Amino acid sequence: MSSTLYTPVDDSTIALDTTRYPVLAGMESPADLRRLPQERLPEVCAEIRDFLINSLSKNPGHFASSMGAVELTVALHYVFDTPYDRIVWDVGHQAYGHKLLTGRASRFHTNRKLGGLCGFPNPDESEYDTFTAGHASNAISAALGMSIAATLNNDEPPRRAVAVIGDASISGGLAFEGLNNAANANNNLLIILNDNDMSIDRNVGSLNSYLAHLTTSKSYNTFRYRLYKLLKKLHLFKDNNRGRLLRLNNSLKSFFTKEQNIFEGLNIRYFGPFDGHDLPRIIRVLNDIKDMRGPRILHLRTVKGKGYKPAEDDPANWHAPGKFDPESGRKLSESKPDCPLKYQDVFGETLVELARTDNRIVGITAAMLSGTSVCKLQEAMPHRTFDVGISEGHAVTFAGGLAKDGMKPVVAIYSAFLQRAYDHIIHDVALQELPVLFAIDRAGLVGEDGATHHGLLDLSYLSSIPGMIVASPRDEIMLRHLMYTALESGRKGPMAIRYPRGSGRIAQWRQPMKHVDIGRGEKLASGDDVTVLSLGPIASEVSVAIGQAAAKGISVAHYDMIFLKPLDDSIMEEVARTGRPVITVEDASIKGGLGSAVIEWLSDHGYSLPVHRIGVPDKFIPHGTPEQLYKLCGIDAGSIFHAIVSIKQERK
Amino acid sequence: MSSTLYTPVDDSTIALDTTRYPVLAGMESPADLRRLPQERLPEVCAEIRDFLINSLSKNPGHFASSMGAVELTVALHYVFDTPYDRIVWDVGHQAYGHKLLTGRASRFHTNRKLGGLCGFPNPDESEYDTFTAGHASNAISAALGMSIAATLNNDEPPRRAVAVIGDASISGGLAFEGLNNAANANNNLLIILNDNDMSIDRNVGSLNSYLAHLTTSKSYNTFRYRLYKLLKKLHLFKDNNRGRLLRLNNSLKSFFTKEQNIFEGLNIRYFGPFDGHDLPRIIRVLNDIKDMRGPRILHLRTVKGKGYKPAEDDPANWHAPGKFDPESGRKLSESKPDCPLKYQDVFGETLVELARTDNRIVGITAAMLSGTSVCKLQEAMPHRTFDVGISEGHAVTFAGGLAKDGMKPVVAIYSAFLQRAYDHIIHDVALQELPVLFAIDRAGLVGEDGATHHGLLDLSYLSSIPGMIVASPRDEIMLRHLMYTALESGRKGPMAIRYPRGSGRIAQWRQPMKHVDIGRGEKLASGDDVTVLSLGPIASEVSVAIGQAAAKGISVAHYDMIFLKPLDDSIMEEVARTGRPVITVEDASIKGGLGSAVIEWLSDHGYSLPVHRIGVPDKFIPHGTPEQLYKLCGIDAGSIFHAIVSIKQERK
Repeated sequence: MSSTLYTPVDDSTIALDTTRYPVLAGMESPADLRRLPQERLPEVCAEIRDFLINSLSKNPGHFASSMGAVELTVALHYVFDTPYDRIVWDVGHQAYGHKLLTGRASRFHTNRKLGGLCGFPNPDESEYDTFTAGHASNAISAALGMSIAATLNNDEPPRRAVAVIGDASISGGLAFEGLNNAANANNNLLIILNDNDMSIDRNVGSLNSYLAHLTTSKSYNTFRYRLYKLLKKLHLFKDNNRGRLLRLNNSLKSFFTKEQNIFEGLNIRYFGPFDGHDLPRIIRVLNDIKDMRGPRILHLRTVKGKGYKPAEDDPANWHAPGKFDPESGRKLSESKPDCPLKYQDVFGETLVELARTDNRIVGITAAMLSGTSVCKLQEAMPHRTFDVGISEGHAVTFAGGLAKDGMKPVVAIYSAFLQRAYDHIIHDVALQELPVLFAIDRAGLVGEDGATHHGLLDLSYLSSIPGMIVASPRDEIMLRHLMYTALESGRKGPMAIRYPRGSGRIAQWRQPMKHVDIGRGEKLASGDDVTVLSLGPIASEVSVAIGQAAAKGISVAHYDMIFLKPLDDSIMEEVARTGRPVITVEDASIKGGLGSAVIEWLSDHGYSLPVHRIGVPDKFIPHGTPEQLYKLCGIDAGSIFHAIVSIKQERK
Repeated sequence: MSSTLYTPVDDSTIALDTTRYPVLAGMESPADLRRLPQERLPEVCAEIRDFLINSLSKNPGHFASSMGAVELTVALHYVFDTPYDRIVWDVGHQAYGHKLLTGRASRFHTNRKLGGLCGFPNPDESEYDTFTAGHASNAISAALGMSIAATLNNDEPPRRAVAVIGDASISGGLAFEGLNNAANANNNLLIILNDNDMSIDRNVGSLNSYLAHLTTSKSYNTFRYRLYKLLKKLHLFKDNNRGRLLRLNNSLKSFFTKEQNIFEGLNIRYFGPFDGHDLPRIIRVLNDIKDMRGPRILHLRTVKGKGYKPAEDDPANWHAPGKFDPESGRKLSESKPDCPLKYQDVFGETLVELARTDNRIVGITAAMLSGTSVCKLQEAMPHRTFDVGISEGHAVTFAGGLAKDGMKPVVAIYSAFLQRAYDHIIHDVALQELPVLFAIDRAGLVGEDGATHHGLLDLSYLSSIPGMIVASPRDEIMLRHLMYTALESGRKGPMAIRYPRGSGRIAQWRQPMKHVDIGRGEKLASGDDVTVLSLGPIASEVSVAIGQAAAKGISVAHYDMIFLKPLDDSIMEEVARTGRPVITVEDASIKGGLGSAVIEWLSDHGYSLPVHRIGVPDKFIPHGTPEQLYKLCGIDAGSIFHAIVSIKQERK
């Protein structure tokens, strides 16, 4: 039985226009690419770019990263024997070109749609997608595993493993752990550093300035590479004599540059930097180094958005631009003028508002300044804003240190990525009862980004941490109240507020903030037949369902618990005493969230009521629109309505 | 309300012998130390060492690390204005000397005992213990937070922050993330690298060989340091001109050495390596650099076990040696000759046995070769054993890569440390249904290591992961069966087996291994009054309680569920139909473990039985012997017996 929720596959195809895509249309797999003479490859690159611009302008996705990786993608599939050789893409924002070259161009119109292609490399989708991508920095470790497996298996011909990682991802702790181990183990891993000097926002951290700096010594590195090739030709160097080559490198370096090379410090042979858009050169270098023994890193400089001027000029905004007009580059906004802001915006503006009243409040994000709207604090108070790059663990431990010495850190991280900092929340914050506020963004079903990005486990993994307060607002105004309460003077211990991706419901959200009693919910509706307890913005689905039930003559009480932990004893007592059936509703995994807490409370207090738990099934949930996924998971208004009707009928 | 379980404090004191410890006995705080003339400090060091040898030979604890850090500890408290200045110890194995100097010598006989001193730095215990220690690699991030808080607070005089980290800890991803951020942010963090070329076992990873190598260029570094001081004296360098100084360093380096310096590559000023036992020199250097601006690292070479010959000769075995004779260094073994082996030994030997039959099985540990007994596999099959150092996240993702290409990785990590790899388990293993076996060591209450080391959350954080099989054996034979089953051909998806620290119960454990049906428990005893469902070795406590209950005429049925996930439907159905009260028993947090799963099952299937859940309270649990902690948490046989009696009486 699969651990992924069953979803009908959308395998509709649209044949490529053979006039517009004469080469691409004829390619079923990378084997076809490898049959082309090298001089035809620029045509392939041009077709891929045209296809991406055309397709993504209509069906939005991640744009600029894939545009910047076109030559690299073509070169990899041209030089390496995929899928026998393993290419592991880190994060996978850049892998659309790879999808086009690996037999998925005719299905690309289904990208990020329910049942269609996944927006990230996905091993369930294609044997060319060797490993799950989505959370940064895992490619080196995964590909190292593959390289060692190839050795242990004695695969013949030797199976090659390549990790493709960006300059933002490589600053994550996991990538460093991978590098540190790659250098020591017996493996032939090739790491390709796709360095565009950008993650989603601009990079931070000293490794990034280091990489930028490294690039400037290009002439030295080029010289060294040529010399190396010459010496190899003359049989003065053997590939398995790594120590000697490193010494050559270092000696040369002392003559030609004042640079440090971190990678060679770690005993990983370094090549580069090279222009990542110079296709003949990348192919030549890849052929030169593909069968070398031992770990090595190839550093390529690329331009995010390459080949599409508007994206080259403003790559951060073209990371995932939404629909746009391919000719003009004008973005086609789908939001209506008076629609409510996103939860993120309300969070960001409220954070600034609160920070103005208390100079101990500081904001922390892990490479998601604009995604989380912490950028608003950065604009207002740059010295109290910390973008730590892709390092969620550090973000949390760092917040612990700040809190220990009197600050009130607000750590805004996406729910799924905060999983990286689970131990840090426990050990470096909760154990010391430090007042860190976790602003958990993208909680619940996030939609098109799919399985890797849904934030479904946070209620479970947070509520089992002793002393952790876990809350979720039903709307933007409550989000503000909760933030205000979390940051009040004298409050001790950590608190988590989870809220979803996307628009709220209230245009007039800028109401005065007020204190909310920790662990107290609110009654939203009275009713005599069934009681619904909900947590978070899914309260609005409940309201719709209650309206439908009322039309059928069923009277439903509704409480917004607001806090999962501590759970409101007085509401629970009130509800339990009625003896009426209870339905719990949450946009999180059914394991360990509100439903579990309610059942535990009832059992521990000796009550036995029928309880129907509505939440996301204990499965990995694929991608689709939020509306589709709500239905698929059975947490939409319709499903809640049906649960109300059937629990009422059971009790007749 | 504190999130730590209330425990009566043991604040008994034993005055220090003023003849044997003339200096130490008169010191109440580091202020007293700072009043001593520097030439008296060697006496302090000698007294600390003698005290540690004497005390730890009787009341065991971590020995060799603290012995190696004596001079460093004395120098830090002598030079820095503690507790106003912040010293953050990483892991804290080395902090006993720090405890002695900060007013806790007379309480040191309570170290690691219930209600006594904690074996690690603990902010609840002393204001000198600035941050929780226990899980490696957090000191840089935490101290960076403190350094930035000092700046934001405009503390006057400027508050200094020092992170003391070992060469093993610094290879962890979190430490790298901290370094990467320290280099960029506006802070004056001092990092002290206490480099003894050892973690608990010997270090692995290229960073470690790098550090070892760095040491060899001592003459160059000494020259550079002297030159730097001269230039500073001549006002040719200002401390805030960091870039210029780095360039000086680099230029010098090109002349004097062929080394790379990773830290300077990361833009962190580097000093060292110096002899960490040369007290006058450390004090001089610390005074020189303590008020420099910007992040900097001081690299000290120390000898683990320094000052006690047996420990210097075999530091790994003297990391935590147990009781010993201080004169001879002979260890006083407390184990009886014929007592059962530890669970760890059974795991290690069984792993070798299974690996002999299937060459796809490989073993992975994160710096705990001997602690987990993966060393047994290493002895037998070194090329199929991977000690990745302190990098739990990498260990898991690397296992994912190995599994993806056909291997059967067994990842043995302590329960509390596996929290570091939570996201990696989800994203890099479970989502792809890869057959990785998680051997979760030190699950449950670990005893004297205390709050940071208890493995109480694993049932909760693992069972909410879709597709994860979660099991716990009641004894060593079942451990073998479960390992055999997990590694059988054709089994898909991840599986976790949790087992405790310490001795098992069965001397004749080497029984033939057999297949166990996934998700099937076993009935251990029949009975008519009450049903007990248990998970793991705590079954033996249940058996004792059932014996006591039988003596009172209460008849108790007992099932060992073996699997938390999937839960055994047929046992649940059988138990539910009896309508008899149920008691669940587990050595894990009451939040999200067996009790929760049982209640959820009953509620979802429309049953309402009285259920009493016995597990560890939702609190952080301090240190003590396992027996004491079982009682304190109410999960010992006596507590189970009382629960049986009272649930029986309620039903009368």
